[in-house]
Amino acid sequence: MAEAGIEYVRLAEFSWGVIEPTLGGLDFSWLDEAVDILADHGLNVVLCTPTATPPKWLVDEHPEILQADPDGTPRHFGSRRHYCFNSPRYREETRRIVSEMAAHYADHPAVVGWQTDNEFGCHGTVRCYCEDCSAAFSEWLAAKYDDVGDLNEQWGTTFWSQQYASFEAVDPPRPTPADHHPSRLLDYYRFATDSVIEYNRIHADLIREHGDWFVTHNFMGDFETLDMHKVSNDLDLVSWDSYPTGFVQDRRAADPSMDELRAGDPDQVGLNHDLCRATNDAPFWVMEQQPGDVNWPPSCPQPGDGAMRLWAHHAVGHGADAVLYFRWRRCLEGQEQYHAGLMKQDGSPDRGYNEAKAAAEELTTVDVDHVDASVALLHDYDNWWAIGVQPHAPEFDYWEHLRCYYRVLRARGVQVDVVHPDAPLDDYEAVVAPGLHLVDTELADHLTQFVEQGGQLLVGARSGVKTPANQLHETLAPGPLADLTGLVVDQHESYPEDVPLAVEVDGDEYAATIWAEWLDPDPQTTVVATHTSGPGAGRPAVTRRNRGDGSVTYCGVWPGSELLDELVAELLSRGGIKHTSRLPDGVRFNERDGLTWVTNFTSRQFELDVPMGAVVSGGQTLGAFDVAVVSTAPHLISISNEAS
Amino acid sequence: MAEAGIEYVRLAEFSWGVIEPTLGGLDFSWLDEAVDILADHGLNVVLCTPTATPPKWLVDEHPEILQADPDGTPRHFGSRRHYCFNSPRYREETRRIVSEMAAHYADHPAVVGWQTDNEFGCHGTVRCYCEDCSAAFSEWLAAKYDDVGDLNEQWGTTFWSQQYASFEAVDPPRPTPADHHPSRLLDYYRFATDSVIEYNRIHADLIREHGDWFVTHNFMGDFETLDMHKVSNDLDLVSWDSYPTGFVQDRRAADPSMDELRAGDPDQVGLNHDLCRATNDAPFWVMEQQPGDVNWPPSCPQPGDGAMRLWAHHAVGHGADAVLYFRWRRCLEGQEQYHAGLMKQDGSPDRGYNEAKAAAEELTTVDVDHVDASVALLHDYDNWWAIGVQPHAPEFDYWEHLRCYYRVLRARGVQVDVVHPDAPLDDYEAVVAPGLHLVDTELADHLTQFVEQGGQLLVGARSGVKTPANQLHETLAPGPLADLTGLVVDQHESYPEDVPLAVEVDGDEYAATIWAEWLDPDPQTTVVATHTSGPGAGRPAVTRRNRGDGSVTYCGVWPGSELLDELVAELLSRGGIKHTSRLPDGVRFNERDGLTWVTNFTSRQFELDVPMGAVVSGGQTLGAFDVAVVSTAPHLISISNEAS
Amino acid sequence: MAEAGIEYVRLAEFSWGVIEPTLGGLDFSWLDEAVDILADHGLNVVLCTPTATPPKWLVDEHPEILQADPDGTPRHFGSRRHYCFNSPRYREETRRIVSEMAAHYADHPAVVGWQTDNEFGCHGTVRCYCEDCSAAFSEWLAAKYDDVGDLNEQWGTTFWSQQYASFEAVDPPRPTPADHHPSRLLDYYRFATDSVIEYNRIHADLIREHGDWFVTHNFMGDFETLDMHKVSNDLDLVSWDSYPTGFVQDRRAADPSMDELRAGDPDQVGLNHDLCRATNDAPFWVMEQQPGDVNWPPSCPQPGDGAMRLWAHHAVGHGADAVLYFRWRRCLEGQEQYHAGLMKQDGSPDRGYNEAKAAAEELTTVDVDHVDASVALLHDYDNWWAIGVQPHAPEFDYWEHLRCYYRVLRARGVQVDVVHPDAPLDDYEAVVAPGLHLVDTELADHLTQFVEQGGQLLVGARSGVKTPANQLHETLAPGPLADLTGLVVDQHESYPEDVPLAVEVDGDEYAATIWAEWLDPDPQTTVVATHTSGPGAGRPAVTRRNRGDGSVTYCGVWPGSELLDELVAELLSRGGIKHTSRLPDGVRFNERDGLTWVTNFTSRQFELDVPMGAVVSGGQTLGAFDVAVVSTAPHLISISNEAS
Repeated sequence: MAEAGIEYVRLAEFSWGVIEPTLGGLDFSWLDEAVDILADHGLNVVLCTPTATPPKWLVDEHPEILQADPDGTPRHFGSRRHYCFNSPRYREETRRIVSEMAAHYADHPAVVGWQTDNEFGCHGTVRCYCEDCSAAFSEWLAAKYDDVGDLNEQWGTTFWSQQYASFEAVDPPRPTPADHHPSRLLDYYRFATDSVIEYNRIHADLIREHGDWFVTHNFMGDFETLDMHKVSNDLDLVSWDSYPTGFVQDRRAADPSMDELRAGDPDQVGLNHDLCRATNDAPFWVMEQQPGDVNWPPSCPQPGDGAMRLWAHHAVGHGADAVLYFRWRRCLEGQEQYHAGLMKQDGSPDRGYNEAKAAAEELTTVDVDHVDASVALLHDYDNWWAIGVQPHAPEFDYWEHLRCYYRVLRARGVQVDVVHPDAPLDDYEAVVAPGLHLVDTELADHLTQFVEQGGQLLVGARSGVKTPANQLHETLAPGPLADLTGLVVDQHESYPEDVPLAVEVDGDEYAATIWAEWLDPDPQTTVVATHTSGPGAGRPAVTRRNRGDGSVTYCGVWPGSELLDELVAELLSRGGIKHTSRLPDGVRFNERDGLTWVTNFTSRQFELDVPMGAVVSGGQTLGAFDVAVVSTAPHLISISNEAS
Repeated sequence: MAEAGIEYVRLAEFSWGVIEPTLGGLDFSWLDEAVDILADHGLNVVLCTPTATPPKWLVDEHPEILQADPDGTPRHFGSRRHYCFNSPRYREETRRIVSEMAAHYADHPAVVGWQTDNEFGCHGTVRCYCEDCSAAFSEWLAAKYDDVGDLNEQWGTTFWSQQYASFEAVDPPRPTPADHHPSRLLDYYRFATDSVIEYNRIHADLIREHGDWFVTHNFMGDFETLDMHKVSNDLDLVSWDSYPTGFVQDRRAADPSMDELRAGDPDQVGLNHDLCRATNDAPFWVMEQQPGDVNWPPSCPQPGDGAMRLWAHHAVGHGADAVLYFRWRRCLEGQEQYHAGLMKQDGSPDRGYNEAKAAAEELTTVDVDHVDASVALLHDYDNWWAIGVQPHAPEFDYWEHLRCYYRVLRARGVQVDVVHPDAPLDDYEAVVAPGLHLVDTELADHLTQFVEQGGQLLVGARSGVKTPANQLHETLAPGPLADLTGLVVDQHESYPEDVPLAVEVDGDEYAATIWAEWLDPDPQTTVVATHTSGPGAGRPAVTRRNRGDGSVTYCGVWPGSELLDELVAELLSRGGIKHTSRLPDGVRFNERDGLTWVTNFTSRQFELDVPMGAVVSGGQTLGAFDVAVVSTAPHLISISNEAS
Repeated sequence: MAEAGIEYVRLAEFSWGVIEPTLGGLDFSWLDEAVDILADHGLNVVLCTPTATPPKWLVDEHPEILQADPDGTPRHFGSRRHYCFNSPRYREETRRIVSEMAAHYADHPAVVGWQTDNEFGCHGTVRCYCEDCSAAFSEWLAAKYDDVGDLNEQWGTTFWSQQYASFEAVDPPRPTPADHHPSRLLDYYRFATDSVIEYNRIHADLIREHGDWFVTHNFMGDFETLDMHKVSNDLDLVSWDSYPTGFVQDRRAADPSMDELRAGDPDQVGLNHDLCRATNDAPFWVMEQQPGDVNWPPSCPQPGDGAMRLWAHHAVGHGADAVLYFRWRRCLEGQEQYHAGLMKQDGSPDRGYNEAKAAAEELTTVDVDHVDASVALLHDYDNWWAIGVQPHAPEFDYWEHLRCYYRVLRARGVQVDVVHPDAPLDDYEAVVAPGLHLVDTELADHLTQFVEQGGQLLVGARSGVKTPANQLHETLAPGPLADLTGLVVDQHESYPEDVPLAVEVDGDEYAATIWAEWLDPDPQTTVVATHTSGPGAGRPAVTRRNRGDGSVTYCGVWPGSELLDELVAELLSRGGIKHTSRLPDGVRFNERDGLTWVTNFTSRQFELDVPMGAVVSGGQTLGAFDVAVVSTAPHLISISNEAS
């Protein structure tokens, strides 16, 4: 490992069964040996609490710790993540094992930090429907609402006679003949994420009691059910697990191209990097970087030559301070035998080994601070959940919608922070808010202040429609944002993705899809685009108005990339944000502390036009799945449009 | 409402939670106020029994009232329709709340009628599999069969050792390794619909005890599991809920065209209108007319300009005496926030308001009697269920099959009654019987008499195959109809819909699909069409014979529209039924009491050629989604084939 | 029946309900009468134990005999196969009814043999998850492993803390959040098949106690979950149920052609014939031959004229000694009313009757011994299950993969035995081993010996990857086969089937699909094909080496048929196996004891070029769905490429 340039080694996730083979029979000897060997070679260790896999003896003794499906079927032993976050018994067992482990390694100099559990919520396990969760949900509601009358009013339970006489009467949302109440679902989703937060805090608090360590958790990519903004409040360091060629297959609407099967989608990966970085406004880690082919996507082609090196650089360019690979060596047994490691099962180096080593050598020459971004993309799990409960169009996915905006911004070579709407916006020149669905007056004031003080704001469709309780505002959309945006939405409509929609801007036609709103702008508001399709033809589709020292643009459609690029380019120009011409698909720039990473996620070759001597790493010719690090700003770099 | 031309207001469906917030704590004050305000403005009120949504306190007190899925999972509280029709406890609670409500409004002059419950069976709730249903099914069987030996013989339980030793031994059809017995399923489906009938009768009887009101129920469109013919015996008025742009998306095999996404399919809607009208042989109501975009279809485009007006006229042309809209104002809370009303949530008029008002103004000038039809389309839920249990071809849907026949009839400008096979047929010149699957000698005699007395009969494929108990007849299909039709079916076969089938008529080839029978006609029977595809090539596919003063045509394929139009045109001519040339797709004529509604469900424009001064409402030019009312018979109206 | 040329009649499967209408109330009178009538007409009777359908009185008395789904839902009464193989109670009832029945017919001269139960495992019933199975699984494990520590080591339960403290702690694989452990699943699948074996043995032993009868069981086609090699150890005769036009629709990846909808796929059917024949190395029976259209496939076109005769000949050519049809007469009642018989429901002959009669007449002139094959195709359920648990590519199906190899062999006119890898290989010139996934040194030695003694071996991709316990070997694939094949697999990768892969052989490009391995051959090993697509371009894809007196070819891709034909032709030439040029699709030759069956599963017509007078049955012109029997070897027969 040391020879490969590795500095940090993560250990012991899922290890409860060997740490405690029988109740109370603790055995750290094997782990001690491993940690000592690593320490002897100058490697730092990140330990994991082993709670993601309660052993069978514990399940047999206390079957009530198992999660339950909505219909009551237990989530049985035999894989992982089968425990309920709200089980009092499991919380007690968690405290016991975490305390024992933290105490045991309290003085070990090689142990620098801890990962809590592993991939909270993986396999759909944030939301559980067991009796412990039922009781905990009632308590959570009691803590949130003044009384049950307040709950009934906030949710609006008169509809379909859904009134509750007590908090205890509110169950988890189990199978029903028709749709669940959207306010009840939204609160259940909030409760479920809060259950994980509480459970994570048990770990974090106990670990900190025993040492001056950093505490992190390895989040998953494109993951909806767990509020990363909130969980991260209890973490010193945000990290996540990045599997580019899997993600393009199993968590994105569009079918992957051949290049994407080889290297992934830089914007899909980048959006997660930028969320991790911006959440705690600090460098993040990739705790698991894909080391080669893996076991779980539908298909498992070999990554392109260079892809593993590319991903490491790409992460650093986005603000990562460490990239760890999962796993070191292919495992002979169990569910992940088809998961590559840096080493093959016979101990010989696999494809990823040499690439990881090369990346490590190149990156040791680089010393960079935190990434600065001028653009904020607002992101909020409540909006994700609220739109997910009532998408009103099969293809309207909140995260896909955000990625459309992100992709166009990134194609202009700018850095993007993905931040919660409530976050301070003073450091940004431009703010982009797609699908800002749940808005109250406080948030509207926050955004108004940003604009009045000179900020450029781009608001997307479906914004301001609902209260935070998931009721419609009594006023027309965008509700509390109507004054700021200078319009109301007369009508909204949704379409299958294959129905082409169109708008017109200055005589040119642009494509849109899935969603259309007919806008009624104020006299002070300028019409930027007009519908040219459907019964709304001739009605405004995109508007803009100046307000104080800034401006606000409202985009009442799911915009095609051409239309969105027009809006984004104007936004960046108004904000004085330096940007590039549109980059080729799959090529992205990441600026960090004076250096720019030029990453090529395609099999094509490009020539860079940069100042003499500016190339710090790589070369002027950017090969397939190649990277160059350049000591100049993105807007000063030109790239040939597919040389050779 | 009064200003909008509204005359009837439906109130209080789903209102149990506010009528009785706690057990016995009845509160009608809010409803009294509403009814009084409506009365003050001259509006009539239709009240609903609130039983579609038992409140949570009742569910918590008596969880046994919940329905159960086939695997035993309860259908929990949190949406609607979660109660079991056979629950003795729920029937008792129903009697209590209905009596209280009917007694309370017994003397109110503004209350003119009652709707029982709401959309019986919505969300798949006709069929329940709980223990109460198990007991009730056994009782139902005991009442139907002489003894269990009779049941065993009627069903034919020797197959796969399915004999029952007692009625109690017969359970609801729960999950099994392989298919269920088709006779058991058919009886369970009959039992389930009878359970709703009994439950509805509880309401109807109690309401009638308290006043001289009409009793109605709002049925759903294209709905399989509830026998509307039977339920309607207990109703004074049949009504249904019409959502044209949703129905083309979620309950029809063909993908909707863009025009259909804007206005729906006139034949899909019309078939439901004609079923409602003919069921009780009286004008019907549309209790819920789509008022704009709604929340539940996959996609929700805005209806075309004029569509809401068009639908109201179309309903009246088909025999509706009232068209009510659901809903008046968009609701801020709960599951239907995306359901438009005539008013927006802020109280301003929505698109539907002006169209509803226009339709109301136009229709007040019209005073028409009941619709007369010369053609009967036979329809029977038992056949629907029997073919549904054993479709023998993935795409053979009974209702789709009926609609094919209906569509071609309607394209010839004739009125169609959709009636039960047992209904008197004396008033009809022609009877069309597609998929008349279950036939006994009594029904065969009924049809034979119709033909012998001069009727023209068109029988479709798969007719006469089975006994009412869902066993094969011992004789070859069409079993008891073999004598009348003058043929037996030598072979039947089914195909994926994308396999083209063909028959030949007088040297011309016509398309067929999905289903083919090889017919062995008697010498007295004429071959109309011959198969030209498959191993049955050369074998008769369609036959005709004269019988008494009438004729009977047997169509042994699922006919394409060209073939079917040939058969239908001949049928109408033989019956002396005046008809038009083939109308354009999406344009339909409805004759009612001397007036003809010309309805255009397309975005194209047409010119009407009608006698001078005959246009009562609308104009000679029929715009997109437009309607004209003309004081002349359909066959005297010409329409340009897509002017402009 | 006698007039139709029938010699054997199978009776009484599913008859428990009439044999024993109430507990202990045995009644064989109806069956006695049937058997006696058949005997009187010189027909032989095969009786069935009636256990596939325990009657309702037994289920009501002992509901614990029902199987359970993984989530615990019982598989209820109402179809068939609802009993658990491991239920002590049901085994007792089985012993009782089988003993009674065997004793009753012990002296009847017309009863020549017995079929145990019916289609073990149909409808997914091999694997059950009830409490009886849980206990039996623990016992099975205890018998297999030295102690639970041995189990933990063999499975590799350290991964994800899956250690077990006792055999009792191991449950059936019930629903879990993520994938199950592959070693646990594989053992559960083995256990489940062993449960059927034990259960079948109860029947076989009791039957043999009462008479000198043959014992058979009717297996299903293309059936994964039951190990036919193992079950057949307890049978005197192997039989199976053949439904060619259904199988092309419901158990094959490719969509059926129109010809296949009419007659099926000769290689799909033939592979099952050859598995049945080779399993016990003896002639087999077709216990149920499709008699016309049947009820259960998605679509049910009529078979082509001649298809029923064709299937009978085809079976005999493959080694069948009897072909029985299911069923004799169409049944009026129950689930299979749409299943044709040789007779229609009214007792008149159906299409199959005349064809069955013709085939019987033709085949009575033929007297042939057992089929000899020079090629063995290795087949093993453990490999099927292991790859099924972790296919690593959605389209990598073990059986489809085998069929690709089988199809190309059969297109060269050679006979193929489908045998277990452990079977003696001395009688074969060539052995083909696709997907030989689980390999230990013993098996490697067995194959090495075969090659060294002059055999020609073709090994497919994914071979030698795992231990029999479903762990990876510590050495690189093909593990214990590395020495024999002279290579290791550097990388493997998988692709969606629609991604074209390519390899190059001697300058020509060939297609491959789904799977690719990059091979590292020894110096002694020759590269036959090289990848030309993907990052592995230039790397070896197929290799060959000589070893002892034989040779071994390794094919590291899922080969397209052109590539595979090159490999197979070379294999046959090296083995000195006489073969034909490539036969047209759908035309196949079967050599049996000096006669060759030429079968045409297409609607095209062909001319045969054979020695004067060699045609024993049929003619020189091979019509649509026609057959000819020729007294010469396949490689001496020429066939025109689609005459007429």
